[in-house]
Amino acid sequence: MEDSLLNKINGPEDLRNLEKKSLPRLAQEIRERIIDVVSRNGGHLASNLGAVELSMALHLAFESPKDKLIWDVGHQCYTHKLLTGRNKSFDSIRKKDGISGFPKNSESPHDIVETGHASTSISEALGVLTGQDVSGEEGAVVAIIGDGAMTGGMAFEALNHAGHLKKQLIVILNDNTMSISKNVGALTVSGKWLLSNYLSRLFASKRYQKLREKFDQGIKGLPVIGMKLFDLSVRIRKGFKAVLYKESIFSDLGFEYVGPIDGHSISKLKEVFEEVKKIGRPTVVHVVTQKGRGYEHAEGNPTLFHGIAPFTIEDGKLTERASYSFTAAFSDSIVKYAESDSRITAITAAMSKGTGLHNFQERFPDRFFDAGIAEEHAVAFAAGQARAGCRPVVAIYSTFMQRTVDQVFHDIALPGLPVIIAMDRAGLVGDDGETHQGLYDIALFKSVPGMTIIAPGCRQEMAAAMDYALSLNGPCMLRYPKASALSCDDMAVPWQTGRGRLLSEGPSNTLLITPGGILKEARTAAAELREEGLYCDIYNLRFIKPLDEEYLAEILDSYTNVICIEDSARIGGIGETIASIVLKRQLNCRFSYYGLPDAFYAQGTREELLTEFELDPAGIAARVRLVEETELSLYTRERKVEGA
Amino acid sequence: MEDSLLNKINGPEDLRNLEKKSLPRLAQEIRERIIDVVSRNGGHLASNLGAVELSMALHLAFESPKDKLIWDVGHQCYTHKLLTGRNKSFDSIRKKDGISGFPKNSESPHDIVETGHASTSISEALGVLTGQDVSGEEGAVVAIIGDGAMTGGMAFEALNHAGHLKKQLIVILNDNTMSISKNVGALTVSGKWLLSNYLSRLFASKRYQKLREKFDQGIKGLPVIGMKLFDLSVRIRKGFKAVLYKESIFSDLGFEYVGPIDGHSISKLKEVFEEVKKIGRPTVVHVVTQKGRGYEHAEGNPTLFHGIAPFTIEDGKLTERASYSFTAAFSDSIVKYAESDSRITAITAAMSKGTGLHNFQERFPDRFFDAGIAEEHAVAFAAGQARAGCRPVVAIYSTFMQRTVDQVFHDIALPGLPVIIAMDRAGLVGDDGETHQGLYDIALFKSVPGMTIIAPGCRQEMAAAMDYALSLNGPCMLRYPKASALSCDDMAVPWQTGRGRLLSEGPSNTLLITPGGILKEARTAAAELREEGLYCDIYNLRFIKPLDEEYLAEILDSYTNVICIEDSARIGGIGETIASIVLKRQLNCRFSYYGLPDAFYAQGTREELLTEFELDPAGIAARVRLVEETELSLYTRERKVEGA
Repeated sequence: MEDSLLNKINGPEDLRNLEKKSLPRLAQEIRERIIDVVSRNGGHLASNLGAVELSMALHLAFESPKDKLIWDVGHQCYTHKLLTGRNKSFDSIRKKDGISGFPKNSESPHDIVETGHASTSISEALGVLTGQDVSGEEGAVVAIIGDGAMTGGMAFEALNHAGHLKKQLIVILNDNTMSISKNVGALTVSGKWLLSNYLSRLFASKRYQKLREKFDQGIKGLPVIGMKLFDLSVRIRKGFKAVLYKESIFSDLGFEYVGPIDGHSISKLKEVFEEVKKIGRPTVVHVVTQKGRGYEHAEGNPTLFHGIAPFTIEDGKLTERASYSFTAAFSDSIVKYAESDSRITAITAAMSKGTGLHNFQERFPDRFFDAGIAEEHAVAFAAGQARAGCRPVVAIYSTFMQRTVDQVFHDIALPGLPVIIAMDRAGLVGDDGETHQGLYDIALFKSVPGMTIIAPGCRQEMAAAMDYALSLNGPCMLRYPKASALSCDDMAVPWQTGRGRLLSEGPSNTLLITPGGILKEARTAAAELREEGLYCDIYNLRFIKPLDEEYLAEILDSYTNVICIEDSARIGGIGETIASIVLKRQLNCRFSYYGLPDAFYAQGTREELLTEFELDPAGIAARVRLVEETELSLYTRERKVEGA
Repeated sequence: MEDSLLNKINGPEDLRNLEKKSLPRLAQEIRERIIDVVSRNGGHLASNLGAVELSMALHLAFESPKDKLIWDVGHQCYTHKLLTGRNKSFDSIRKKDGISGFPKNSESPHDIVETGHASTSISEALGVLTGQDVSGEEGAVVAIIGDGAMTGGMAFEALNHAGHLKKQLIVILNDNTMSISKNVGALTVSGKWLLSNYLSRLFASKRYQKLREKFDQGIKGLPVIGMKLFDLSVRIRKGFKAVLYKESIFSDLGFEYVGPIDGHSISKLKEVFEEVKKIGRPTVVHVVTQKGRGYEHAEGNPTLFHGIAPFTIEDGKLTERASYSFTAAFSDSIVKYAESDSRITAITAAMSKGTGLHNFQERFPDRFFDAGIAEEHAVAFAAGQARAGCRPVVAIYSTFMQRTVDQVFHDIALPGLPVIIAMDRAGLVGDDGETHQGLYDIALFKSVPGMTIIAPGCRQEMAAAMDYALSLNGPCMLRYPKASALSCDDMAVPWQTGRGRLLSEGPSNTLLITPGGILKEARTAAAELREEGLYCDIYNLRFIKPLDEEYLAEILDSYTNVICIEDSARIGGIGETIASIVLKRQLNCRFSYYGLPDAFYAQGTREELLTEFELDPAGIAARVRLVEETELSLYTRERKVEGA
């Protein structure tokens, strides 16, 4: 390792000082480093392997952080991190207290924009650019966005605005559709049809590129006399250009279009970027890269290696076998019900695998719809299907549902349409950190008039929740965590609107209230306490909304202590709702509630984060012991936790 | 009126049975009816006058409701309402218990989709179309969308998906940019630059249209032999076509493009629509209309007559002079601070007039940005400007902020950027009904970690709120109602984070707590009670978040009764937050809170709606009298209200 080039790179200036001939070797070292660390920590592999040369060329042509590199989504920033002083800390990526798997301004001044969600980079970049005009700051501004994120409406809104403002915004379109579409059909090009259809039409061979250069030279000689003639000449140029190589959607929006460029040629990329800096107008540089480049298993299955758990480098196999998850329970449920109910459709926003809808997709291809990375559209599209008599089920991660709050209000809830929204990854999510936590969905959606929100607590409840949701003639949201789903036979009892399931075993003073996502932890805590001879009942809410208040109040009133535990944000959570019921009905129980304090939460495993906030079984058990002991300490303790 | 044609139209079939030569007379009658009613009730005038012939032609060519007409935003649906059996009830439009100013499915089966927010129609239409395939329903599906709404990202997401699915979706682009852009420059074409630039390039003269027809005929003769040659011929065609008339962005996305068509020729429109029904592929029909058509004042100033209060038909002048509003107070504040702070920028999402930013725009054109009807982009764009050292102020109505929840989380709050978001129209809004109420912003945004939310209660507090917000080094939201802002000298006292303003005049048992938007009503109630010799203090929160809990608790503890009143949703509101504080700290006061029960609220004036839910001065005074009388009746009453 002594002659490692990567170990000598402490910042982009070291990269720029390298001899040109050393660059391919450095690229190779970076690839090996990424594969090694991701094989141990998990993470985004395919996208990062595809962006090695692109990231290097960007740091060669631009001077970060004076020039601003803004990564869309940010799941392709590993090379960027390695080149900007984070090689040493790279082993800790996505680990608790380690570096983030996404750009993070607090981690490095080279990370201009914190990200995690898609399609924001062009808006941010245009903001920085116009902001610099006002504040007097300087530097080129570059947004790097994948073809998938480009299908998000925000990217279009921003392109449109940028085309109008005519500032020198540089957009690097990192297009890896071509390599993916080689593999097969729809299954792997999830959410990518815009660019798989459209960009492939733009793609031109080398011979084309040469012709084009000549043509551009030739065109410059055309006569331009007066406005009318000028207009005509522009039109003629445009016409001829379209014969030789296609005009792009980007030129329609007021951008210069440059490309496509081989995204694995550092020298070509650097040369183009340096030219582009001189253009002075909004420009899209279309770069074609290969996902998973340099690691055969990732090249062969870039979808699997998009975001991957730890694996063995030799064979590309996952190190640990995944347990049966809530996602799997959802996946099995929807397929089961769709067998007998032909009205059921399934909609994903480019996440058919992550949401478990791929099974539905295989089984019922005609009733499966991939809306692309376009959550807003996906939800309104579902509304339309419900109007036509279908029973659409939209599966979107909790964090991405933040994109569709208005569509849930305006398109689903206002007309009261029977759309089921399955919010996977609700609650503490883990490795992806701040931008992927599903902590806010209860707060966001409990205020939607007439909405039903269910939080199933185990496999049996997932099936029952789906059954219940399908029986409704209105909207329903299911929320469940990224966690394994237990099989609990004692939960398989009939459902009644607004009522939960009381698990009682002995004479208890204390009741634990849980939304389903954290039932498992509560049960483990109760089992632990039972060993100590301390009985503690559990009321699994099932319903976040509506709540049968009378029924709930009656249960609460029969306990001395009631503790509500939720693995999501305390403010606006279910605990706050129940607190207001306790107060309004002047119930006699001592009620306290716990969740995540008002903050953003960095990466760590779900278990680590639950433990940190005393929401793990040990933490829950400790809370029960405490209220059983003394009233005073309860309130002291609560205030302490709240201040955390 | 006996020979009125309009009075004989009870449904679209009556229209279809009319003689062709009567159609222009009917159009004239419809225009007169719309002008007459809107001059009395207020409403959307310019857009509706522009869409008279278009709506008639749609009902001639399509069979509603079997064929589905889906109106984007819906503010152009008046002719549609008049043609589908609502001529008699049309006088009640936008009035309490009257018909809605927007499409409403519960009002008529011809209103397929409830709307009010922009850019959803193509998603909904594509949903209906694909849903029909599954459910076996039949009928053509037509989305009618304006050029403004087309700038919203969702429309692009949906076009993109539709182009991929290749179903027979018909999109009518109602383009009235041309007529607007005639008027002047940027000021009136707010948020329309995409189509003012782009569509005007598409626009072709009549001579062009003829040339085009001939050309299309000619092109059909080109040789098509084998795939390679075919591809070449397609490219050649495309090239020549581009010489003669421009290819459109819609064709790039997989749509057929037809147009532009004169949007005021019923016969031409009908003919084209009937042709388009046969195409069998996704098609955009580009229709050019004139906003305000047929009413000279609206033609001359379509922006003013977009959404208008009651006016005198003869001179186009407003019937009543508007009072000094919270919007005006905001407008004055931002201009004042921007005079001395050159970092301040202002951003609107195509609402510079409605948000009061037009004054800033005139005074500081270089620091003013119109992001188009693209709230998501507007907020992320502001984040970018803050990163570049600016102090951006984004002004968006509360209801439209529902579109940007994720951007507030991900782009503003996570990095903790000093962006000020001014949420106008927070609380009960009035005439526009369900889709425009600003009832949910507290619930949505109080869970955003680290967010500051301020609700100023009068002019003095608006200025102080702006001052405070600018002093922060992080994000801040201001929320204020569509209402007049009083001048209250007694509110002009220094601000402390998390603390409100206590207004106390005598020995009181009861405290009223208000967010600023409803302070005026509370003060009127208190004044009324004072007359009766009943003193009642008021605590204006100023801060929705953060709350100085210790300080608040101390105040609450010194009253027997505390009543929190808010003019927004009860679930997730500030009352719920304070209830949880009362419970947690075991305060001794009898606390109750009131807001809007869990429902959607149709149109009516703000005063009518406040009265209906006993949130008007009389209702508030009654609540105070009640708690002063007896504890028992308080709880009885509260349950009654809650069930409302």
